[in-house]
Amino acid sequence: MSNAIEQKLHEILGDRLLTDVDDRISYGFDGSFGQYIPDYVVQVISAEEVQAVVRVADEFVIPVTPRGAATSLSGGPLPVAGGIVMDFSQWNHYLEIFPDDLLIKVSPGVRTGDIHKLADDYNLMYPPDPSSSSVCTIGGNLAENAGGPRGVKYGVTKDYVLGLQVVTADGSIIHTGGQTVKNVTGYDLTKLLVGSEGTLGIITEATLRLIPKPLDTMTAMIVYDDLYTAGKSISTILTSGVRPSKMEILDQNAINKVEDYAGLDLPREAAAVLLVEVDGDTEALKKEMEVIRSALKKIGVTGVNIAGDKEEEAKLWQVRKLVSPAIVSSGYTKISEDATVPLSKIPDMFKKIDEIKEKYHLNIVVFGHAGDGNLHPTINTNMRDAEEVSRVEDAVEEIFNYAIELGGTLSGEHGIGTMKRAFLEKEVGQAGLEFQKAVKKALDPKNILNPGKIFPNPGEKRLVLNNDTAP
Amino acid sequence: MSNAIEQKLHEILGDRLLTDVDDRISYGFDGSFGQYIPDYVVQVISAEEVQAVVRVADEFVIPVTPRGAATSLSGGPLPVAGGIVMDFSQWNHYLEIFPDDLLIKVSPGVRTGDIHKLADDYNLMYPPDPSSSSVCTIGGNLAENAGGPRGVKYGVTKDYVLGLQVVTADGSIIHTGGQTVKNVTGYDLTKLLVGSEGTLGIITEATLRLIPKPLDTMTAMIVYDDLYTAGKSISTILTSGVRPSKMEILDQNAINKVEDYAGLDLPREAAAVLLVEVDGDTEALKKEMEVIRSALKKIGVTGVNIAGDKEEEAKLWQVRKLVSPAIVSSGYTKISEDATVPLSKIPDMFKKIDEIKEKYHLNIVVFGHAGDGNLHPTINTNMRDAEEVSRVEDAVEEIFNYAIELGGTLSGEHGIGTMKRAFLEKEVGQAGLEFQKAVKKALDPKNILNPGKIFPNPGEKRLVLNNDTAP
Repeated sequence: MSNAIEQKLHEILGDRLLTDVDDRISYGFDGSFGQYIPDYVVQVISAEEVQAVVRVADEFVIPVTPRGAATSLSGGPLPVAGGIVMDFSQWNHYLEIFPDDLLIKVSPGVRTGDIHKLADDYNLMYPPDPSSSSVCTIGGNLAENAGGPRGVKYGVTKDYVLGLQVVTADGSIIHTGGQTVKNVTGYDLTKLLVGSEGTLGIITEATLRLIPKPLDTMTAMIVYDDLYTAGKSISTILTSGVRPSKMEILDQNAINKVEDYAGLDLPREAAAVLLVEVDGDTEALKKEMEVIRSALKKIGVTGVNIAGDKEEEAKLWQVRKLVSPAIVSSGYTKISEDATVPLSKIPDMFKKIDEIKEKYHLNIVVFGHAGDGNLHPTINTNMRDAEEVSRVEDAVEEIFNYAIELGGTLSGEHGIGTMKRAFLEKEVGQAGLEFQKAVKKALDPKNILNPGKIFPNPGEKRLVLNNDTAP
Repeated sequence: MSNAIEQKLHEILGDRLLTDVDDRISYGFDGSFGQYIPDYVVQVISAEEVQAVVRVADEFVIPVTPRGAATSLSGGPLPVAGGIVMDFSQWNHYLEIFPDDLLIKVSPGVRTGDIHKLADDYNLMYPPDPSSSSVCTIGGNLAENAGGPRGVKYGVTKDYVLGLQVVTADGSIIHTGGQTVKNVTGYDLTKLLVGSEGTLGIITEATLRLIPKPLDTMTAMIVYDDLYTAGKSISTILTSGVRPSKMEILDQNAINKVEDYAGLDLPREAAAVLLVEVDGDTEALKKEMEVIRSALKKIGVTGVNIAGDKEEEAKLWQVRKLVSPAIVSSGYTKISEDATVPLSKIPDMFKKIDEIKEKYHLNIVVFGHAGDGNLHPTINTNMRDAEEVSRVEDAVEEIFNYAIELGGTLSGEHGIGTMKRAFLEKEVGQAGLEFQKAVKKALDPKNILNPGKIFPNPGEKRLVLNNDTAP
């Protein structure tokens, strides 16, 4: 370990520089796979500190990996090449709302859930809502362009970011975008940086757009005997003239996991359930539910159960929220995918996952954001069983390939990180990959910003789950 | 003129290569200022032709300037450095809708209005609606990230582009994004390319997202005695809990221009009128209008006139549509700006424009998309009066400076092009400009794609309207 680096970092951060091995180990993992040990951990609390640290990294050509709450499912915050982990979780105090401008400004370590709460106090809404929102940071959401259930109507994180303050690879501070919804002044660096996984610049402040909070919501649970019809219902509802604010699906396996875990009187024998929320004026919602009911009737679907009151509605959404905890409680490792397909291809994707489940003898639960084609096939596996893990790797690869074949994408909302980088070229092609690499090389010529993410290592062609490098 | 270039282009395009000077002159202007003469005009009708032409440009290092219907107000399609004008207007035939996926695929020359019509046939909507939509092409909308009145609720062109096919500067064909709303596979090149004014790649196909068409609309005209209160109303309405689908403002000058032009019984003495549309369920709309009425009453605004039927509603929107024709009919040159400010700053911007109007003795009409802070201060001027033109240039510069001072932007929806490039650094700063230039240099190292746009010429510090270079 270089003393010159340590000394410089200490000058910038004092006791917010962590170098003990125990501390460093605890910054070496996230919600995906692999354990790595950074050389230094810095707990930054200002743009000037970020800038100073990046200048040290630039001088000594060592990696900087930004990290929020490390809930990432794709490996974004893993310090795969060592160097500096830049922990933003202590920089969680800047959160200022401008209600007349429908804006909120935040530091990267602010929890997404705190943004929701503050907006709500002003009768406003920040729609992106990843399921980790009570713990994850907005910085992580920005890095990975997080989504959530409201994507079908309201879009994803990127759609709510108007401006950024960013530290570039050479340690400059730049501002992108601004405070207006319309802005075509030069290249859209805001939307390039959001979702770039900390590889093109480090975000130190974001200006987010809020919208008026919808007056009311109403939710229906629709029960299906077969998955194909459930899939077909999604397009049927979305072309009925109604615009649902959420549309989530759970397959039989997911239903039974939740029922085992929480005992909510769910229909264990159903092939799937669809949860559909509409939002707006209360009376209009009743009519919209009737439009949905009648559209579904035309394709032979009749089991539309509308929550009668707020308590019943909350209970329905509880079902969806409990899927992940229910899977985790089984004790095995949970591998959560987010392949996303065009809406009309959802039935095909369900069918394929069913085939893959049989073929590889795996326990796959399928649930997800049906309204935007973003499914979460989730595999429960024993990571100590190398033979099973190898089957998991094959199954995941087959899911990726089929999603691409259907005109879909490897990742809807989790990011590429380390988990999917081996498959990037399959989706974007060689010329597309070169175009992306040209952007990276231009903006981070020394490759110090979160190296090892998005782009495959030379010759890397498949997912490897057991890549622990920890001692 | 190089015979080798002409020969190669002729092999690719046959008689869709135009070299006569009369033809070339007619491709040398757009809706902004300046007249330039390209060396060649090519009327492309396939991605392969675009690719072949770009390869010629790459080989001989000559500029390629893409052009749709040339309605640009910022100079995007001007061939300022000669070379090849690539005319997309003949490639207007590929338009395929996938209603179950809520998608439409288009070639660049398709008229935006034709997209609206086809979506409407399926009870779907493509929200972006620049006022030139009956003539402009989607390719131009993509290049400039066009907006329109629905921005306040539905966003702009970029928000509806899921995927692109693009010819890069070296003549490769790449695909960006895909067919899904959620997609975080690598860098978001789709959103980088949309709005990049043809300087990073040439778009040859786009996959656009559609949404269910709202069931109904309702419109109110609100009449004001003073501009400040009109401005204040905008935030008041947007924080009332209602989400208007359009919110347009006309100042007294605009009202009177329309009244002179069309005689619609408008309140000539009003300081401003605000047109507010809400969309959704008919009964809900009535309630929403009451919410707006009561929110406005609290700030002392009472003149809320709701259109009683569709005919009356159409008449109100006719008022807004006639502003531009009314200004043009005055016979002078119309300089249309699109400085955009945070919502709460709209009253300040109105006040400043009033001061500028007095200071420079100019005829400035103000109207625009109030709901997203996107005003169109429009100057009527006699381009033959050099002294007046010089005052116009000063006034425009002062408007730009004040928009930036208020936390706004130079351009909300028209683009930078040639018209605003001198001011880019003022908004994005030197480091920001370098970051943008690094992207350009990486993706178009020979600077052949629409050179002279976005980035200022060395030493260029102000707007110059009289820059004709035509013989």
